[in-house]
Amino acid sequence: MGIVVKLKDDKNVRPTINSLSTLIAEDMKSVNRLIISHMNSEVELIPQLASHIVAAGGKRLRPMLTLGAAKMCSYQGDRSIALAACVEFIHTATLLHDDVVDASDLRRGKSSANILFGNQASVLVGDFLFSRAFQMMVADGSIKVLKILSHASSVIAEGEVLQLTTTNNTGTDENTYLEVIKSKTAQLFAAACQVGAIVAERPSIDESALETYGMNLGIAFQLIDDVLDYSASQLSLGKTIGDDFREGKVTLPVILAFRRGNDEERKFWRRAIQDQDQNPSDLKNAIRLMEKHNALSDTIKRARHYGSIARDALGIFDDTPIKSAFNELIDFCIERAN
Amino acid sequence: MGIVVKLKDDKNVRPTINSLSTLIAEDMKSVNRLIISHMNSEVELIPQLASHIVAAGGKRLRPMLTLGAAKMCSYQGDRSIALAACVEFIHTATLLHDDVVDASDLRRGKSSANILFGNQASVLVGDFLFSRAFQMMVADGSIKVLKILSHASSVIAEGEVLQLTTTNNTGTDENTYLEVIKSKTAQLFAAACQVGAIVAERPSIDESALETYGMNLGIAFQLIDDVLDYSASQLSLGKTIGDDFREGKVTLPVILAFRRGNDEERKFWRRAIQDQDQNPSDLKNAIRLMEKHNALSDTIKRARHYGSIARDALGIFDDTPIKSAFNELIDFCIERAN
Repeated sequence: MGIVVKLKDDKNVRPTINSLSTLIAEDMKSVNRLIISHMNSEVELIPQLASHIVAAGGKRLRPMLTLGAAKMCSYQGDRSIALAACVEFIHTATLLHDDVVDASDLRRGKSSANILFGNQASVLVGDFLFSRAFQMMVADGSIKVLKILSHASSVIAEGEVLQLTTTNNTGTDENTYLEVIKSKTAQLFAAACQVGAIVAERPSIDESALETYGMNLGIAFQLIDDVLDYSASQLSLGKTIGDDFREGKVTLPVILAFRRGNDEERKFWRRAIQDQDQNPSDLKNAIRLMEKHNALSDTIKRARHYGSIARDALGIFDDTPIKSAFNELIDFCIERAN
Repeated sequence: MGIVVKLKDDKNVRPTINSLSTLIAEDMKSVNRLIISHMNSEVELIPQLASHIVAAGGKRLRPMLTLGAAKMCSYQGDRSIALAACVEFIHTATLLHDDVVDASDLRRGKSSANILFGNQASVLVGDFLFSRAFQMMVADGSIKVLKILSHASSVIAEGEVLQLTTTNNTGTDENTYLEVIKSKTAQLFAAACQVGAIVAERPSIDESALETYGMNLGIAFQLIDDVLDYSASQLSLGKTIGDDFREGKVTLPVILAFRRGNDEERKFWRRAIQDQDQNPSDLKNAIRLMEKHNALSDTIKRARHYGSIARDALGIFDDTPIKSAFNELIDFCIERAN
């Protein structure tokens, strides 16, 4: 009789996306194959540039949402695979277009696709992937899915434009910021989940639950992303921080630190973010002020709020491994900030 | 009894788009209203930038093709109006994305939307218009139309990327050039016409005839556009010429002059187009070489060839005022080079 040694206290086990990845592993392989085959073109630069960004493309969170949502709805077919690839193509097109910079930005030393291939190539290959996504949706043939994803695309573009108008604007308030991240990030998370319910032909209550899950997960995800750009723990992982700061993006940590600061502090934020007049020690000072005013920890608290809404949205579904995995995904998205 | 004085010999009457404009005037007003209303957004920068380019938007040739093709097919409904607006939105998005430049291009003194609003705004508002176009198509609800226009969008993007790879490349041959202009220009002309036949639920032979008309009209149109960039008559109208030359675009006039030139001339083209090492007198010399080798007049001849195919494609339709107007449109597109 052995003795069970409990190696880790449960509280210390960090949430991961592994249970989700494992549950949808087979479908995800098909999605990846479809992505590779559909980004092909006789114009060689297209697969070249597209594979550069798709290869760098991280966790494939959005297509995982479509596959997971379909699984939660007990969907057995393969439409979710093509639609998951569509969602990833829309996301990739957005990334490519995000990389496009104005001449003035080039000084700030980005090393994205647009530097390797030029702005024009980034724009045009983004357009190609975006059109390809629509072709794949049209091949699927559901007007309902087309409606949701074309609406999402339009809202994403609006959100990105709104973000442009908040950049360098320290007067941006939390509501406007929330509008930006709902549009530019959470809308596609929501659509990705909703599409999973639609292919399974589930009643609108399930569709709506998954949409709510995706929307709130997306908000939490983006809030944490915006925290990580100022996080010392990221720095210790060898990742760069301070991109948002250097670009003058007004994210929630900035909004909170600015509004909770004194006159002198607000003067600092105005110089660094509004006037874009920065010196090398400014990032360190920005982080110090954020810590002084709990701007980072309170942004994480806000993220937990949206995470709770996402969790409750799933309440109507039976307790299954995929439901647990979707719940763990919320924790994963939030706890990566610690 | 008056005497009829024939003021002009028929041969001297320049073809115009007036007969076409007049025949579809009412529908075109509806298209314009729809364009204005659908480019609206709560994000103010979007209608601001979009109206800048839509207002500057010239002849509205592409939506006129959709309306005219529908009329040729005796279509009585109003679906052609929304779809004509879609076609114009796709075109406008392309224009905005064409304006995006790399840092190195800024020196060459463009004065397009991207200068006024920045690269990022041009890209994102283009994405918005593109997504809006898809939303309008989805609202129309025809999978067949969606298939044609999403395919056209994808081909346009491929054509633009292919064009990037031919830029500064004096080795580009006529076939590759033809591939570029078919993709980036003629495909949308073809789709615009085809959609007109589809809403009228005409047999595939009519659909195909209008598609062929649009494709060949588009090729002729782009060939002439590429001639006009080297045309002294444009200069006398107060328009700028030489943009393609300065950007190192390898259009048919360049291809013909390069291939018909002697070693010294090819050295000139390589320096100016390939190495982008240009001095102020180079454009004049380029035009001189084009004239020496009939590169401009032969490009116009090529355009007439495609114009003839477009004309013959319409042969199966009854002789009606709209058919005459579509035929006159071919002449208009070509004869503006004289």
